[in-house]
Amino acid sequence: MSQVLNYLITARRCEVEELQRLARTCQLVLTVGKLIHCLQQERGISNIYLGSHGERDAQVWQERVAASQAAQGECETWLESVEHDNALSNGARLYTRIAFALHALDGLPKLRADVAALACTPAASYERFKTVVGALLALVFEAADVAVDPQISRLLVALFNLMQGKEFAGRERAAGAAAFVTGKITREQEQTIETQIEMQEQALRRFESFAEGFRNEWTAMQATLPLADLERLRRKLLTAHGRPLDPELADIWYQCCSTRMDGLHQVEIHLAQYVQSQCQDKIVELQKALDDQAQLFSQEEARDPLAAFSSLDGEPLPEDSLRAGVGPHLTHSIVDILRSQSERLQNLTQELATVRESLEERKLIERAKGVLMMKQGLNEEAAYRLLRKHAMNQNRRIAEVAQAILSLTEILPDT
Amino acid sequence: MSQVLNYLITARRCEVEELQRLARTCQLVLTVGKLIHCLQQERGISNIYLGSHGERDAQVWQERVAASQAAQGECETWLESVEHDNALSNGARLYTRIAFALHALDGLPKLRADVAALACTPAASYERFKTVVGALLALVFEAADVAVDPQISRLLVALFNLMQGKEFAGRERAAGAAAFVTGKITREQEQTIETQIEMQEQALRRFESFAEGFRNEWTAMQATLPLADLERLRRKLLTAHGRPLDPELADIWYQCCSTRMDGLHQVEIHLAQYVQSQCQDKIVELQKALDDQAQLFSQEEARDPLAAFSSLDGEPLPEDSLRAGVGPHLTHSIVDILRSQSERLQNLTQELATVRESLEERKLIERAKGVLMMKQGLNEEAAYRLLRKHAMNQNRRIAEVAQAILSLTEILPDT
Repeated sequence: MSQVLNYLITARRCEVEELQRLARTCQLVLTVGKLIHCLQQERGISNIYLGSHGERDAQVWQERVAASQAAQGECETWLESVEHDNALSNGARLYTRIAFALHALDGLPKLRADVAALACTPAASYERFKTVVGALLALVFEAADVAVDPQISRLLVALFNLMQGKEFAGRERAAGAAAFVTGKITREQEQTIETQIEMQEQALRRFESFAEGFRNEWTAMQATLPLADLERLRRKLLTAHGRPLDPELADIWYQCCSTRMDGLHQVEIHLAQYVQSQCQDKIVELQKALDDQAQLFSQEEARDPLAAFSSLDGEPLPEDSLRAGVGPHLTHSIVDILRSQSERLQNLTQELATVRESLEERKLIERAKGVLMMKQGLNEEAAYRLLRKHAMNQNRRIAEVAQAILSLTEILPDT
Repeated sequence: MSQVLNYLITARRCEVEELQRLARTCQLVLTVGKLIHCLQQERGISNIYLGSHGERDAQVWQERVAASQAAQGECETWLESVEHDNALSNGARLYTRIAFALHALDGLPKLRADVAALACTPAASYERFKTVVGALLALVFEAADVAVDPQISRLLVALFNLMQGKEFAGRERAAGAAAFVTGKITREQEQTIETQIEMQEQALRRFESFAEGFRNEWTAMQATLPLADLERLRRKLLTAHGRPLDPELADIWYQCCSTRMDGLHQVEIHLAQYVQSQCQDKIVELQKALDDQAQLFSQEEARDPLAAFSSLDGEPLPEDSLRAGVGPHLTHSIVDILRSQSERLQNLTQELATVRESLEERKLIERAKGVLMMKQGLNEEAAYRLLRKHAMNQNRRIAEVAQAILSLTEILPDT
């Protein structure tokens, strides 16, 4: 009897520890999110600085660099404080992503030296920053792909999609600014921006669909974002069709996009804090359940354990324990507690499988895009458009087309 | 740079620890397998003892009880030696199953007292033993459902199916012995035995399909099993159709089935040891890879990390790290090592998903059987036949029918 209780307590303690790891993972996401935001700001300012041949925003650029460095320092300090095994959920894969991200961050000093010396084009600087941000987002994505608690997993998936959406918004800001500054927009730029808007909207829709319990806050915060201004500027940009654009709008566009990105970053911080508080609530709840169980166990009189396994009408249930949850409910019996625990864990596992399916689809699409970019020499937006076109033509889901492309990787021609 | 290496090492160490937990889980399965085998032997002898009203095999019965108790003691000692968090893979769910199994084992003293006092029928004793064995098999099943290494997972699934097949063989032994002893077989007994044979064959087919690298050994061991004798006796049993059976054959049947079960138990021990050795090999391999990597890192000259992220033709790959594995291969570069590590982990995850799918199907079928047994008052064999009949009539897979039944659980009528 006491052994049974011991193992039940150990099982619960495992769950609590998983949740504690998850709470730490949320902190990591929060810290990385701040760094991403700083790098997006630095990326934007670096482009303005490079585009103006060092004449504009030199001071702001230095401030942004300092802010990024501080945020990176915070990230690294935080990582050092948890750098031991089992400190984070999803160990091997997450630590590999951390190594990846740190390696990308190691490239920043050289990039900044190039920017300071005006030794690279705005486009090249932009791509190098994009790589760093991509590596950091990949880390967040891996953190979201954890098999612990479905509600928390859904919120982490929401958080990742929000951050992903903000990155697409950052790319739209850069592409739009480049067009306004030159006073014209090419057909290719138009297509790129349209795709960036679509990818943003998709990411934000996924964010909304996964961010249960956070939707009211999101609705309230959206009202503070300059969405009408943004749409008006987008319309000017995308309906010019060869007519000149007003270069004066470049700054207004940049400010409008930046304000929106700052707003999204605030949502991101609130959501990350919300996830952390949900983790804490669940930990408290589990610990309370643990205390209650110990009490129930001590109240339980001695009875024949195998009798409790059988159903009330005397029909015995062989292998009953494999089918926890379908048996009769003998109030407060040990079998009852064991069953409900095992049923709960089973349900968690099944819910998690559903959440992770959506992540798997995303991975497929990302990898297929990568193959198309490599093999066909496309940029990301064009690769996505190609995938989507095939899906529409064949009346299949994008993930299915992605799967088909990946299975053909070996035989696809290189361009 | 050194930080990158540190995190890569931490990632590998996480993998090694997962494998060590897996190796311990294999030991658990081995120990539990021995206990199951002892309980199956005790169950059989208890039935003979009860059926003969205490006149036959009293001495053997006591020996079997002592053997079971010793095996249970070994299990408990082993469990105590690892009773700390994170000692086993799949913590919360596995520990819950252990609690379940220990609770079922707590029922054995009362059961044995009833057998000793001839205070229960052979059928009732049999069902109570079946519950205990079922709880232990559920533990093994949970141990097999781990998300670590696909090859090891496949072998654990093979091992579980072998043990499951042996349990069905044990049930066939009991049902056949009951028929031979009474000198006749009813239509219902016939159906039960036919289903038990079918379930055995299915489990052993699954075992064969998952037991890669072990098939030669299995083929060799099968040759030592008394399969021809068994089939001859099965034919006599299942073609009697109302004609009397020779009660003299009861002992021969029992011996033949027991010899086969002992043989299957030997296969089980060898397979469990094989899985353990595979775990050890993988641990050694990972540690070697870790050393090699550290060396490569120390040889790597300083270069611009962000340049290595880009592809050879200068086409930059945004979010490249999300698509590890599709990039160009810069021999011995850090990005290369990171990519191959991340690709390897990604492939492991996908392979694992495939293995676990087959486990999910099994869970569905088990739960649907449980619902049918509860709601329709069927025994396990009849519940399985009902599932199979529906599947054949509707030309669907059994797992699909099981899913449909589970989704209707609430509205199914009770009998």
